[in-house]
Amino acid sequence: MKTIYSAEIVSVGTELLMGQTVNTNAAFIAGELAAAGIPSYRQSVVGDNPGRLQQVLSEAVSRAALVIVTGGLGPTEDDITSECTAAFLGRKLVFDETSADRIKAYFSDSGREMSSSNLKQAMIPEGSVALPNVKGTAPGVLLEFGTDLGPGDEKIIILLPGPPSEMRSMFSEQVLPYIESKAPVRMRSEYIRIFGIGESAAEEMIRDLIDDSVNPTIAPYCSDGECMFRVTLTKLEGAADDDSSLLRIVQEIRDRLGEYAYEVGNRSLPEVAFDLLSERNETISLAESCTGGMIGAALTDIPGSSGVFKGGVTVYSNDSKIRLLGIDGDLIEKYGAVSRETAEAMACSCMKLFGTDHSLSVTGVAGPGESERKPAGTVFICLASAKGTVAFRELKINRDRNGVRRMSVLNAFDMIRRELSGI
Amino acid sequence: MKTIYSAEIVSVGTELLMGQTVNTNAAFIAGELAAAGIPSYRQSVVGDNPGRLQQVLSEAVSRAALVIVTGGLGPTEDDITSECTAAFLGRKLVFDETSADRIKAYFSDSGREMSSSNLKQAMIPEGSVALPNVKGTAPGVLLEFGTDLGPGDEKIIILLPGPPSEMRSMFSEQVLPYIESKAPVRMRSEYIRIFGIGESAAEEMIRDLIDDSVNPTIAPYCSDGECMFRVTLTKLEGAADDDSSLLRIVQEIRDRLGEYAYEVGNRSLPEVAFDLLSERNETISLAESCTGGMIGAALTDIPGSSGVFKGGVTVYSNDSKIRLLGIDGDLIEKYGAVSRETAEAMACSCMKLFGTDHSLSVTGVAGPGESERKPAGTVFICLASAKGTVAFRELKINRDRNGVRRMSVLNAFDMIRRELSGI
Repeated sequence: MKTIYSAEIVSVGTELLMGQTVNTNAAFIAGELAAAGIPSYRQSVVGDNPGRLQQVLSEAVSRAALVIVTGGLGPTEDDITSECTAAFLGRKLVFDETSADRIKAYFSDSGREMSSSNLKQAMIPEGSVALPNVKGTAPGVLLEFGTDLGPGDEKIIILLPGPPSEMRSMFSEQVLPYIESKAPVRMRSEYIRIFGIGESAAEEMIRDLIDDSVNPTIAPYCSDGECMFRVTLTKLEGAADDDSSLLRIVQEIRDRLGEYAYEVGNRSLPEVAFDLLSERNETISLAESCTGGMIGAALTDIPGSSGVFKGGVTVYSNDSKIRLLGIDGDLIEKYGAVSRETAEAMACSCMKLFGTDHSLSVTGVAGPGESERKPAGTVFICLASAKGTVAFRELKINRDRNGVRRMSVLNAFDMIRRELSGI
Repeated sequence: MKTIYSAEIVSVGTELLMGQTVNTNAAFIAGELAAAGIPSYRQSVVGDNPGRLQQVLSEAVSRAALVIVTGGLGPTEDDITSECTAAFLGRKLVFDETSADRIKAYFSDSGREMSSSNLKQAMIPEGSVALPNVKGTAPGVLLEFGTDLGPGDEKIIILLPGPPSEMRSMFSEQVLPYIESKAPVRMRSEYIRIFGIGESAAEEMIRDLIDDSVNPTIAPYCSDGECMFRVTLTKLEGAADDDSSLLRIVQEIRDRLGEYAYEVGNRSLPEVAFDLLSERNETISLAESCTGGMIGAALTDIPGSSGVFKGGVTVYSNDSKIRLLGIDGDLIEKYGAVSRETAEAMACSCMKLFGTDHSLSVTGVAGPGESERKPAGTVFICLASAKGTVAFRELKINRDRNGVRRMSVLNAFDMIRRELSGI
């Protein structure tokens, strides 16, 4: 088969239907397909039920040239994806020696005992190609069929294991190169990421650009406090490789959104803040209260963060604020632990404690319920540097405990990136 | 309509098909439906495309009595769910005054300016009931139809907003009571949560119970290092309200899985560890290195955590380990920052610093790449109490940076719960 015009993603697992697992696999694969220029118009989730699984396969195959299925390749009796795929195509399962050897090696390498059910994972549909699993036991399956039906009727089914780490590594290393070579168009997307302005208001700022957009297209994406615009240029086969229309519109959107646009590209707000610190060879430390370590966790999520992040204190009690940061107990008494004054004292003390160029502090009421007669969602964030307090925010966040903490983290990184960008 | 025998979940949004957003909404609704005794056999994701959205609605309605749709109720032109639902049913959209007033009030209350597009959100399909949105602007929609077709052909479509906080609050407060009254059976599920043993091995331990299970059923759920078994008893209408078979099997599974079973119920591993500390009125502090604040973030995710968690230090550099915790630089030099010796010194110093009953330390190589000639995935965790080091683990985690950090966090909480449970 030469060209994959569209794909569908099928996720198999009763745990998905029961709401026990969030379907991160579909999001990952969808993102990779989009980047490769293969549109996908439907995702389906179905349980470990033979009839319903075959029904979904049949529908997906009727609509799309490529169907990617995740889950149900495990060793247990509930795992029936290979079986059902074989049955759907009227093929039998065959024992794949190479996969069996890999499974045995996986267990002996990790010093664990193999249970007999694990060898079931070496059974794959006849005529398919096993995809080695470098992170686990279940091989993937690549199945081309319908080639006898003539061009346009050829189909591909790819089965991938459900555990995200196994699936991702198999997808990136084995599936992506295969499907990229069969994509109908080349696409180039750019993302303009914004913070500090709502979806509607941001859209109003570029309304005319959106209304006029054909190719490239402009689309907004928002979720829980984070927003971005995606600009996508589709390049048909044989067309000139000219990105200038894309770059022009991206620049225009960026200019209009001004200070709210923190990134053109793929970096998150923490990554942008981290890179700004890293470029200047400057260091930061953290004094967290209501965020409890979340800002440090986000920073250290970035490989190489130790060059910038020297450490932090999580001072969750008044006593620890006094004891670790040497904050004046009278100050806390007078203004409250959740106050501008305490936030400033936290940042300044923390900076001295760690000897960093900057220090950021957060103190607030995450809720549920008020504290010190301040309502849940009251958060003070302070950024200190050698010049003293260089940035400060008092927030009233109208969200639940999780939302208050999440928005506090994003605001903290936004303050760092604004300060270091001179906004 | 009296009884909803099954439901389907439809998620609308090009951002889902593009992989920009993970579909947490479907997981949430699926979990709530399952708990309410309404099975769902299919979830679908579709983009903001009128034809394809109507096609999905038509398929879902043909299979299930209740179809819950999320997303596409926003103010932008891409948001077409109400429109498409009305078109699918051959109805028109009508302006709902009450919803319009609520939208206006939402903006004036939060001191923000309303953009004209927001009033579009007050347009709902004729004959439907608007569900007030207490966390945002878009009302939900409840639509009963087909009642003229006779019993069994009656259908319900419910439209909910896409932002998770708005959707969840609307679902819990308005949708759940409505559908609970229409569930065909009462179900009771119990979850036995385990840690420290793989899926296959755990299943082998209760193989005969699984093979024999009819009602209650036993099903395993595993994701990224966490595993559980769900035992579900289905009680048909008119049947005696007798849970003894459920309780008996749960107890048997729990007994067989022994020390690996940390919870029968809904509590996560951090919550179990937290509750054990809380029950004993004991406090803990944290000294994190490679986890960078994640353990503190997980603890403070629990409302009321300040009673137990006094604070922590994130000592991401050798210098901060020495400076904040007073660890001997020679010790770090001799054994390395990633070593049993350093982990023990971190926990013991941290306990003194915060004056807590316990202190837990983590130091490791999250990767990518080795450090101090130790491979990525090498992690030392130490739990100290008045008696000194009471628990210690040396881990070799064969995962990526994220996985190493996540498994370190889970192991940390597992050590706390084992220690406090006397295992």
